[in-house]
This record gives sequence, structure tokens and C-alpha cells, in this order.
Amino acid sequence: MSKFWSKVVHELTPYVPGEQPKLANLVKLNTNENPYGPSPKVFAALEAEVGDSLRLYPDPTSERLVQAVAQFYDVPATHVFVGNGSDEVLAHTFQALLKHDAPILFPDITYSFYPVYCGLYGIDYQTVALGEDFEINIADYQRPNGGIIFPNPNAPTGRGLPLAEIERLLNANTESVVVIDEAYVDFGAESAVGLVAQYPNLLVTHTLSKARSLAGLRVGYAIGQPHLIEALIRVKDSFNSYPLDRFAISGAVAAIEDKAYFEETCRKVMATREALIADLQDLDFVVLPSAANFIFARHGTRSGAELAASLRERSIIVRHFSKPARISDFLRITIGTDMQSQALVNALKEILTP
Amino acid sequence: MSKFWSKVVHELTPYVPGEQPKLANLVKLNTNENPYGPSPKVFAALEAEVGDSLRLYPDPTSERLVQAVAQFYDVPATHVFVGNGSDEVLAHTFQALLKHDAPILFPDITYSFYPVYCGLYGIDYQTVALGEDFEINIADYQRPNGGIIFPNPNAPTGRGLPLAEIERLLNANTESVVVIDEAYVDFGAESAVGLVAQYPNLLVTHTLSKARSLAGLRVGYAIGQPHLIEALIRVKDSFNSYPLDRFAISGAVAAIEDKAYFEETCRKVMATREALIADLQDLDFVVLPSAANFIFARHGTRSGAELAASLRERSIIVRHFSKPARISDFLRITIGTDMQSQALVNALKEILTP
Repeated sequence: MSKFWSKVVHELTPYVPGEQPKLANLVKLNTNENPYGPSPKVFAALEAEVGDSLRLYPDPTSERLVQAVAQFYDVPATHVFVGNGSDEVLAHTFQALLKHDAPILFPDITYSFYPVYCGLYGIDYQTVALGEDFEINIADYQRPNGGIIFPNPNAPTGRGLPLAEIERLLNANTESVVVIDEAYVDFGAESAVGLVAQYPNLLVTHTLSKARSLAGLRVGYAIGQPHLIEALIRVKDSFNSYPLDRFAISGAVAAIEDKAYFEETCRKVMATREALIADLQDLDFVVLPSAANFIFARHGTRSGAELAASLRERSIIVRHFSKPARISDFLRITIGTDMQSQALVNALKEILTP
Repeated sequence: MSKFWSKVVHELTPYVPGEQPKLANLVKLNTNENPYGPSPKVFAALEAEVGDSLRLYPDPTSERLVQAVAQFYDVPATHVFVGNGSDEVLAHTFQALLKHDAPILFPDITYSFYPVYCGLYGIDYQTVALGEDFEINIADYQRPNGGIIFPNPNAPTGRGLPLAEIERLLNANTESVVVIDEAYVDFGAESAVGLVAQYPNLLVTHTLSKARSLAGLRVGYAIGQPHLIEALIRVKDSFNSYPLDRFAISGAVAAIEDKAYFEETCRKVMATREALIADLQDLDFVVLPSAANFIFARHGTRSGAELAASLRERSIIVRHFSKPARISDFLRITIGTDMQSQALVNALKEILTP
């Protein structure tokens, strides 16, 4: 605390990211990174950026990347905004499109950065309880609001919401922005990008940190109609003219363009996920249906905190949330390689065998 | 305009960065980039980052870079904050340390991003007129305020303020934060970093875009006592957990560590500057004294707008500000290589010869 702090700094409760341990030889299944590296075409693009042109500012509009994203989804470039990770894109979204008189709505169990953004920008919010099976019920969002945001699939549950449900929400909620955070959508859920042309209040956000294996590069984007994108550009140009460096722009372009590699990587992760779910069910775990590159699972009799600690002793790190109580017995487990899955299952067998 | 925009988006006047033309063969002297590329050690560090580890998040605290900066200035690591360019560092500074009831103060002619940040965060401000010779007069800042910020040397004037004057300001102004923006300090002004230990309200900001030739990488930092740094970290962790990607961290560490290359580059730029000033004076230009990698100059008889346009026709781009009127006849000219200086001087001779 200091007299020099602005009022908002005193009141902040910052986000706490998943641990990035510096130990080698860990089975790291705690921050939903992709077990496979990025496309070789990304490496070539990055290597080409090493040179004297680093003395020059990057393109402030990241036009090449905007064009690549637009082409991938077959939308106009005016529908695309890019930023320094989807966290920055979301931050600008909260400030530009979700700050109104009425409280915004998001699930009670979801990405824990949402209430942090509300604190940073002084946005009022209400949480909406997930249903009994941790599902999002669209009917619960039909009340006055300043905006609605949730991930699809939701995190940390992994549950996907059918596109028809999202469309039902958009038809019922036309006066405020609906943000669908699709960080994990490519692992088996349905993207809402195809609805953008029809719904002027829909914004869809994405990251290259998951399906495109580029968490280390920090790139995210949003897709929406031009009046929404313009609001994000206005905030970006009042915050930082050049949020994406030369590596981020070039690497991201190459990753978006290599569709075959991306699809193959997603397929492998999904196959490993289905095998892991079956193995965990054999070990008496209840596993929520997952459309993400992680699963959310609890054991029939053992506590989540205890299992997480026991795995850690065996150099396997998963994520455990002690709050709220309703999820305190769950583990959020990132899908790794088949070999990492096997290591996890073997460790659990050891832990669970009396 | 859109009903979905938050109030602040309607009111913003975003910053307009200097043009990044896509034409080749330009003599680009408009955005104060370094004419020399980064250190070869930076290239090696960047190349080492190309690989599968890009699938993993970077260190959210950029600890290696914090340590490198701390070592360079011989300050504790708790005195260092790093961000995605000094623009991001400044944005967090405005939100965290300069938003109070009283208006903040900055010069009437200075970095034009300052009033933009005020607009973004709803910060009240007053500008303080520069003196007759475009100098900052410390006595003019001795009035109630919520904070004080200016660059040293100032931009776009290039004038440096002696350290004794900054210390005089700090002694007279103890109740609000004083930010010295040292983007250009390494080209001949005196850094205030050495005063940080003594003054709990001093924050000094830096960029790697100028003296370290890394505008394309987006890295900046701030140095201040831990209670100021903590405020910046709290805002950063409420905005984006991982603002620096793996390239930015590694490249910046290598650039900070290669002190010999950095000093040599600065020396070369300063030598070119002094030669250019003499040449321009011969051509009837009035040139303000510069401690930066640019000069601010006006011709004895010809208008700034006309000269900028004539240079542009000859593929030489400098920056011209039409407002305020007092600087509308000045050109801000980035110091390039000796060869670029010669091209500029030759073009001006052509333009000025009847």
C-alpha cells in the first residue's frame, strides 16, 4: 500500500496464472499448453525475422495477420482485431464493449480473469450459476445486463455449448454485446464465427496459445462486425500503438496459414483425450464431457487437493482450484502426449492402490 | 459510433504513430528508430528461441530480463518493472500511479501519447508551457498536482534537462509521483535512475526501441522503489499475465547485457547528429540543442510543411507536426547513418537553391 497508488490499484485482486515451474522433467499438465510444438512453417517464418529490420517498429495494424485470420475464416478484414494474447484482446473488450450501467453476466465457474478485468475497469458484474451438470443454461442469462461473456467450451469444465444455444441467446439478447471466448473451441466445440455476419452484438475471441501451439508467442484475436472492431482499435490505439512484435506477427501468420498442421495437431490431442477419459473412468473418476484440450475430473472417493499433491510428488503437475467448494474435488488436467497420459495413469494407479 | 461502445470509447482521441511506409528505398527519418541493427548477440539469443518450447507460456514475471536490467543499473530487482514496449509501461503507470483527484502536469509540447492515456483512464491534466527556448522550467511545475510526467530529453524538441533540475523538482514535489520518461536519454542526457534510491516518488521509464535498436521487439521498463513497482505489477497482473513473449524476453536480455555494442552505437549516432546540426546551420536552419537521436529544426525562411512535402517527393521522410502553431515550422529529423544525413543535406540544398 502506498499513498502514490491510484484508487483502483488498492482495490485490485490480480489474476494468478498457472505455475510455470522451472524444473526439467516434469509432466506439466497444468496450463493447457499444446503437447506438440508449432508448425515447421512457423519456425521458418520466425527465423526470417532475425535481422537488422528489428531496429524498425512493426506494422502498428498487424495487417498481414489481420488478412491471414480473415482469409482463414472467410470474413472481411474489417471484422478482425488482433492483440498481444487473447488476454489483451479480452482486456480491451471489457473496457471498450462491456462497461455500461447494467452489470455484465458470466458463469460462476469460468475463466477466473473475467472478474479481475471487472475490477481493473470498474465494471459491475453478476455471476450466473452453472447447472447441476456444470452446464451453461441460456435461459438463466435472460435478464437485463451490460454484456454477457463465457468461454465455449467453458473453462475449467471443458463443456461445450451447442451453436443452436448460442444463437438462441443472441436472439433473446440483442441490446448488449455477447462475447464468446473460443480459446479451446478447436478441440471439438462449434465456433460461433459463422454467426458474426448475422448478429451485430456478437464478438468471438480466439488465442494462438492452445490449438496453434504458440503460448510462448502471445497472439490472440477477435472477430465481430466493424463497429465492434472499431471500438477495440480505438482502445488499442490509446494504449499501445504496436502491441505485436515482428516475431508475433510473422509466426502467427504462418501458424494460421498451415491449416493442415493445425488440424492434425487437434486430432491427435482429441484422440489422446478420449483414451485418457476411458482410462480415468476405469480408475473410478467422474469426467465431465470435454470439447477442450483438458478434462475436468473428480475421483469417486479421494479429494482433489490430496490427489494433486500426490501427483506433484511424482513430478506430475495438474491444476486444482480450492474454490468454489463445488469444484474443490476436481482436477483440471491438460491433455498431453500419449506418453504423458500413460505416466499420469500409472501414477494414479500407484496413488489409488491401497 | 455504436450503442455497444462504452462511454470512454466515444470520447477517445487515439494516438497516431509516425507512418510506417511499405515502400523500399526510402530515407526513413520519421520515427526515431536507430539506423544500426541490434547487437549480434541479440540475433543469437533470438535464434535460440525458435523451437518447440514456443508451445509453452513465457515466464509471466520475465525474471531474467528484470535481473538483467537490475544488474545494468546496479539496482535491486525489486526496483524493476518490464512491459510490452515503454508505451505499455506508461499506460500502466498512468492507470496505477497518475490517477488521483488533482490534475497531472506535463509540458504543452511533449510526447503526444500522454493526453491520450489521460483520455483512456479519465485522468484530469493541465499542460505547462515550455519556455521561450522550448526548455522545461521546473518552477512552473510547483503547483498542486496528481503527478508530473515529462521525457528527458523532451520530445519532439530533443532538449535535455540537467539532473540537478530534476532533483530540484523532486525536492519541491514530494506528494505525487514524478515520472521521467528516458526513451532518448542514452544519446546524451543524464539519467535519473541514480536518484531512485533517494526519492520514493520517482519513476524512470525506458525503452529498447531507440538506443538498443529493438523497436521491432517491443520492450520497455520502469525503475522505481518497490511500492511503485508493486502498483505496476498489480495492474499488469490484472491486464495480461504474459505481456512479453519468449523472443522479447531473450532478445532484450542479450541487448541489455551487450553494453559495449550499445555504447558504440550511441556514440556513432551522436557523432552523426553533431555533423548534421553543423550542416543544417550552414543551410540557415535553427536547430534546438539535442540530447536525443533526433533533432528539431526550422528553416530561417521556409515553412515546415513545405519542406517536409519537398523532402517526401525526394523519398526522404521526416516528421512534421502542424499543431501547435509554435512548432509548425519545425521538422523532427531522426538521426540516421552518415550516408542518410548526406542524402538529406543534398536534398535540402536542392530544395533551398532558387
